[in-house]
Amino acid sequence: MTQSTLPTLLRPASYVYGTWHSNPDGQTLVDAVYGRPVAVISSEGIDFAQALAYGRQQASALRRLTFHQRARALKALGAYLMERKEAYYELSALTGATRRDSWVDIEGGIGTLFSYASMARRDLPDERFWPDGKVERLGREGTFVGRHLLVPREGVTVQINAFNFPVWGMLEKFAPSFIAGMPSLVKPAPQTAYVTERVVRDMLASGLLPEGALQLVTGDPGDLLDHVEEQDVVAFTGSAATAAKLRVHPNVVARNVPFNTEADSLNASVLGLSVKPEAPEFALFVREVAREMTGKAGQKCTAIRRAIVPGHLVEAVTEGLRRELAKVTLGDPARDDVRMGALVSVEQRERVRETLARLQQEARIVISGEAQLLGGDREKGAFLDPTVLLCDSPLTAKGPHELEAFGPVATLLPYESLDDAVQLAKLGRGSLAGSIVTHDRAEATKLVLGMASTHGRLLVLNRENAKENTGHGSPLPQLNHGGPGRAGGGSELGGLSAVRHHMNRLAVQADPTTLAAITHEYVPGAQVQEDGTHPFRKTFDEIEVGDSLLTHRRTVTEADIVNFANVSGDHFYAHVDEIGAREGIFGKRVAHGYFLLSAAAGQFVWPAPGPVLANYGLEGLRFIEPVGIGDTIRTRLTCKRKIRKDLRPDETRPTGVVEWRAEITNQDGALVATYDILTLVERARDEFDPPADTLSA
Amino acid sequence: MTQSTLPTLLRPASYVYGTWHSNPDGQTLVDAVYGRPVAVISSEGIDFAQALAYGRQQASALRRLTFHQRARALKALGAYLMERKEAYYELSALTGATRRDSWVDIEGGIGTLFSYASMARRDLPDERFWPDGKVERLGREGTFVGRHLLVPREGVTVQINAFNFPVWGMLEKFAPSFIAGMPSLVKPAPQTAYVTERVVRDMLASGLLPEGALQLVTGDPGDLLDHVEEQDVVAFTGSAATAAKLRVHPNVVARNVPFNTEADSLNASVLGLSVKPEAPEFALFVREVAREMTGKAGQKCTAIRRAIVPGHLVEAVTEGLRRELAKVTLGDPARDDVRMGALVSVEQRERVRETLARLQQEARIVISGEAQLLGGDREKGAFLDPTVLLCDSPLTAKGPHELEAFGPVATLLPYESLDDAVQLAKLGRGSLAGSIVTHDRAEATKLVLGMASTHGRLLVLNRENAKENTGHGSPLPQLNHGGPGRAGGGSELGGLSAVRHHMNRLAVQADPTTLAAITHEYVPGAQVQEDGTHPFRKTFDEIEVGDSLLTHRRTVTEADIVNFANVSGDHFYAHVDEIGAREGIFGKRVAHGYFLLSAAAGQFVWPAPGPVLANYGLEGLRFIEPVGIGDTIRTRLTCKRKIRKDLRPDETRPTGVVEWRAEITNQDGALVATYDILTLVERARDEFDPPADTLSA
Repeated sequence: MTQSTLPTLLRPASYVYGTWHSNPDGQTLVDAVYGRPVAVISSEGIDFAQALAYGRQQASALRRLTFHQRARALKALGAYLMERKEAYYELSALTGATRRDSWVDIEGGIGTLFSYASMARRDLPDERFWPDGKVERLGREGTFVGRHLLVPREGVTVQINAFNFPVWGMLEKFAPSFIAGMPSLVKPAPQTAYVTERVVRDMLASGLLPEGALQLVTGDPGDLLDHVEEQDVVAFTGSAATAAKLRVHPNVVARNVPFNTEADSLNASVLGLSVKPEAPEFALFVREVAREMTGKAGQKCTAIRRAIVPGHLVEAVTEGLRRELAKVTLGDPARDDVRMGALVSVEQRERVRETLARLQQEARIVISGEAQLLGGDREKGAFLDPTVLLCDSPLTAKGPHELEAFGPVATLLPYESLDDAVQLAKLGRGSLAGSIVTHDRAEATKLVLGMASTHGRLLVLNRENAKENTGHGSPLPQLNHGGPGRAGGGSELGGLSAVRHHMNRLAVQADPTTLAAITHEYVPGAQVQEDGTHPFRKTFDEIEVGDSLLTHRRTVTEADIVNFANVSGDHFYAHVDEIGAREGIFGKRVAHGYFLLSAAAGQFVWPAPGPVLANYGLEGLRFIEPVGIGDTIRTRLTCKRKIRKDLRPDETRPTGVVEWRAEITNQDGALVATYDILTLVERARDEFDPPADTLSA
Repeated sequence: MTQSTLPTLLRPASYVYGTWHSNPDGQTLVDAVYGRPVAVISSEGIDFAQALAYGRQQASALRRLTFHQRARALKALGAYLMERKEAYYELSALTGATRRDSWVDIEGGIGTLFSYASMARRDLPDERFWPDGKVERLGREGTFVGRHLLVPREGVTVQINAFNFPVWGMLEKFAPSFIAGMPSLVKPAPQTAYVTERVVRDMLASGLLPEGALQLVTGDPGDLLDHVEEQDVVAFTGSAATAAKLRVHPNVVARNVPFNTEADSLNASVLGLSVKPEAPEFALFVREVAREMTGKAGQKCTAIRRAIVPGHLVEAVTEGLRRELAKVTLGDPARDDVRMGALVSVEQRERVRETLARLQQEARIVISGEAQLLGGDREKGAFLDPTVLLCDSPLTAKGPHELEAFGPVATLLPYESLDDAVQLAKLGRGSLAGSIVTHDRAEATKLVLGMASTHGRLLVLNRENAKENTGHGSPLPQLNHGGPGRAGGGSELGGLSAVRHHMNRLAVQADPTTLAAITHEYVPGAQVQEDGTHPFRKTFDEIEVGDSLLTHRRTVTEADIVNFANVSGDHFYAHVDEIGAREGIFGKRVAHGYFLLSAAAGQFVWPAPGPVLANYGLEGLRFIEPVGIGDTIRTRLTCKRKIRKDLRPDETRPTGVVEWRAEITNQDGALVATYDILTLVERARDEFDPPADTLSA
């Protein structure tokens, strides 16, 4: 493709209360490259109260799915969209985005679905609620305990997105909301709403989402916020001014609707004081600044706006940037030879130019130019050449720290000491992302900790991670995206943190047995069941939380200690050296801790083949009392929790994970060790060979 | 004491920018019991901008302390205040509080200091930052990793408190803020500010707090919020109306200052449908409702306002409540024979009476009365008799779910089905606390999960925890306090959650070695040090993160497996039964997992007495590849993290905890098992006997 293809005039519709809604007339949008009419949008006639009520009512279908079911739907949805991505790329070029820009938006967005699917299956239980943290013992006798649970808020997430990432911006909010069990009502920015709508059409057509889990409002959001309720959530990405206006909406305030804000910020990249011009880090810094300025034509809320550079390197950096930026070809982003496309609209370009003019009151332009366009229309298209400014007194200047030119614009800020560099970074009063380019670890540590309170994410870039790092401006699903102060004070992504924002965290207080019944996890002190069948002879489906076995006793002898030392090779003095042990912390020879674990296994393991296939892990082992020669131990093994897991393609027999609580006590009933073991257990009885067959083989 | 003692007219002062500030004139407060003038408060002349600037500037002293240093200061402060508690009780009686009410406020408040001190020392590192969650591998080759860090916000916590708990209300906000490293500026409610001021005087006089860590503004807060900045935090407890007003303060909004709200809510207690009048739970329910109505004269944001009762039990419950409430003696709270004191003021009583009148539009009074006063002045004192209403159509009524009579008032709401009970509870549109009284676990589960999305805390009360439970209305430091919607949408306490609210969570991305240097924790893939000294021969102070040892090899033989089976007693078929093992998941006999652990210890343990005293625990063990007969293993042991711990009084030799990463590999270099072991290590070399002495003994 060498030129962006204009489709028939698009009429991106809204999808509300189960139907597509469109209007013949509305706001006409033009493409960013040639200024040709591309789409008409309108939300005229939509009943926003009804849309929200519908979402809330349908939400119960989504909440009936477990976290893992939601995760599987999300993964399948990702695959479904990935197959259809080329259609999104075509539309995306009309917004001024190059293929690389669109890759971040489209495949980055779809990747977020995959990431949330996999985090949810890895770290969340296959339940409709999420037990959080550990059980707190609230009374001396253990009859009163507490624990936190997270449950989905029973409302709708109203997601108000920015124009720059019409796909990623939607999906990075949709994914955690969906995993949490909250339906989304998506309101894209008008300029690029036709891209979002195209993707939403596929999402709905996929049949993978429960009806009502996703609604879309292209066009004006009208009185939407008048109808949000206590259980809803509003998630906003966009300008600080709009955020400030929406956050104080009387209904949002009166009902204490959570309002998460992610606003643009004046992000900084710091070139370390220790970096020499010939060091790899110098080149990395220059490339990164140039890339951040020109990627998405600088229309990224995480882009580098302030390049904080040692004073003696300002000239060299300027020269480097001049060379890098000279390579940036401007034009129709659909062309392969174009490195930077257009801004989203000529109105947006006008705003950038105005800001640039204001910035020049305290800084001067050191790099600019008017490159020849490779396709596109210089005036009707929203093209703007990369511009670099230099501010000579950055510690006292205001503009560079306050005025965001949302385009290919950055300002160089010279500094003399690391303290000054930190101070300059902080003058941004809160940023989404920052970077520090240095190979000196002490310098990196000082800068990271100095800048930490005002940043949502900090990248240390150097030769070690030059190849694998994902860049200053790239939010990742696993890591926090958001920042304090001017960045909006919100938080998105950050792994399961974003899922938590869509849930209510409550404390549950009860007796241990009731808490275990509610949470599906054994709680110390809760009643256990002993039905005479060894728990290891039960399948995953047969095992119940609380199934328990108390072993017979075993007296630990001197011979055990000697034999264990010999087989392990562990001749630590506390076990085998009477003289050293007497003066050691136990005052006598004691059994090896791992002997206790091993002997306990010897007590509770069922030796014949059965549903329990393997012990593959162990958590939280604590040795509490030493066991000496002549002490007698016994072990209680109780099913703590069943963790369903998906069948892997290479697995022939379906299995689940069972976590068992093991408690080893001595002859006085005192705990000597506790731990949780993880076993892989076959799912259903008819899927493994019964012991008898094995013996006859 | 049989009557509250009136002191000389108090002039509770403010403590700002390092000095006490008071005025001769101001607002005169009267005591709640007799209506006598008790204190004059005023904040006239305070420069709020200066107070905030001073707090921010002094904050660096607090941030220089580690979490454990802050925790020790908090613990010492608790002990210091506990010794002086009687003075607080005396003043507290003047606010209308009985000894029991004041116990919750004063000793509950001081207890919060102890709780945060102990949680911080148990669960936070002895550092100035808090590494959060696990290291995320961000690139295939492992050269790019990420992790979250929490650092203190570099501002001041503005704490605006309610009148009902002048001590606890301050301390439960102060404690997590202090642990996080943020100074507090406390603004108590005027009515009871003289109690708060008395405690603050002692806190400052203790000399335990860095100067600037605590400021106090009694009297009007003036233009305080005009001066908060991006790094500050506002934490508010009080009425929803005031919260709504303050949250939209233009400066708070413009700077995205986090604003945590805890507002009164219409909390419900549900009597289970299964409960028979003769069951213990019936009596527990009646007692709990009566206690919550009359404790603190019903002036608790967590009090039971709505008693949700099976329709057929309404009469029995009313009778029970009538009997319980008849025992409640009203009067001067300083008297031992008085069970309920006064409201905080006659103005407050007037408000409650007005609300009561409005409630009567949809509910009728079924219990009321005018008990004889035991001391106090019925009119000049703010006394009010307990009142119970009954609403016959609670699913359609509005008032009982919306109108909060902040006094000894509750409304009975009859229900027929559990679904209706859940529905009624949810009509409160968000509550701080709820309770469910039943011994039926299925019923408890259904009610808890049904009510979960609209509650911050839920108590299941029954015969099992009757003795130890802390009651419907008691927030606990370990558990969440706050609730969605009408409860303010905020969150306090909840263990270390409250500390997190005072910190900035940022993602740090770097190469493993740099991330390890920043976080003081070994990161897989980071460079290690091998200096020829066995790491177990180094003291805690000598060991450095990254110190590492690669052991020699050991070939695992059939004899090892046989010997290990014999010493442990673990004859699982996968280890000892060639036939079963061949058909099992490994396809052959494999070594016991615990043999690998034990053999690894045999490889890396230094046998002679030395600084490493014991291996007391293990975390995160995963067996990755099976080890068969003839495989050869070796182990790398690397110092992952050093955890300083406090010296216990019974400990003669100072020790610290060192966490080691163990990685067992096979002859192909493949990982077969990884885990972290926890060891107790002596702090300094001259504090343990060198091996030579031991041998010569």
